[in-house]
Amino acid sequence: MDLEKYIRDVPDFPKKGILFKDITTLLQDGDAFRHAMNRMLKKHLEAKIDKVVGIEARGFVLGGVMAYKLGCGFVPARKLGKLPYRCIREEYTLEYGTNALELHEDAIRPGEKVLVVDDLLATGGTALAAAKLVEKLGGKVTGIDFLVELAFLNGRAKLPGYPVHSLITY
Amino acid sequence: MDLEKYIRDVPDFPKKGILFKDITTLLQDGDAFRHAMNRMLKKHLEAKIDKVVGIEARGFVLGGVMAYKLGCGFVPARKLGKLPYRCIREEYTLEYGTNALELHEDAIRPGEKVLVVDDLLATGGTALAAAKLVEKLGGKVTGIDFLVELAFLNGRAKLPGYPVHSLITY
Repeated sequence: MDLEKYIRDVPDFPKKGILFKDITTLLQDGDAFRHAMNRMLKKHLEAKIDKVVGIEARGFVLGGVMAYKLGCGFVPARKLGKLPYRCIREEYTLEYGTNALELHEDAIRPGEKVLVVDDLLATGGTALAAAKLVEKLGGKVTGIDFLVELAFLNGRAKLPGYPVHSLITY
Repeated sequence: MDLEKYIRDVPDFPKKGILFKDITTLLQDGDAFRHAMNRMLKKHLEAKIDKVVGIEARGFVLGGVMAYKLGCGFVPARKLGKLPYRCIREEYTLEYGTNALELHEDAIRPGEKVLVVDDLLATGGTALAAAKLVEKLGGKVTGIDFLVELAFLNGRAKLPGYPVHSLITY
């Protein structure tokens, strides 16, 4: 199945000059969604993963399915102030200014094997922040998985030492 | 399995005086997460649902799993300005002021059977907005499902005529 044809290009989103890769057209097609998830899962079925960390918000859709299928727990990595309990925080740089990602301080136990999941690898800043949060809690990041990778932004270079997988590369 | 004991009470979140029901402690437990999802799915396995609409953001986790397991498409209902393509919008009332939810205008086809999923039924305003959006696009809402219901807020009264299910009721 050619998953690429289920991705929609939206010009000038979120701002002028950016060609946005819209994955909702893939998610809303039952066959494409199922196929994509099964392919993302394939590499991890034998890995005995303890937790999947999904990055807000589209990473929740993919990460939730992966955790369910792997029979492990799901942990949301959220933007500032969204998680209700005590958190640890990691800042990361955007084009202008900084942003931050949070995890509940008891979301990962030391030694747990953790898979980080998001929809899109662009510059890699958000995924790196999520990986650092997992490590702060003593977890081991066994993989960082994306549905789509914008290879021309070279986000992989920001994630050295981590096994990075993506299904669709531009 | 007593799912209630996996829900954490967080006092004064998101503001003073509110006792927040934190479901992340359930999601991060692999067995509890799987059990909860299987119970939510049970009622819908024979219903031939075409799309699951998940409400941002925790509804993405649950709705994604349900769409995957039902073999149908997943559609995100998002807050204002988050969806990249052309949208339809529905406003709803909060305690102070209004908020709005959006769906892509091509996310549902006329006649499709749609399940709306969110984590929590409080006053019912958000779920009602999602159901109205589905109907604007010609879809038929075959159910509105929640993990947790705060029955004392009487949100069900706002959703007359819809089959409403919840796993855990307070």
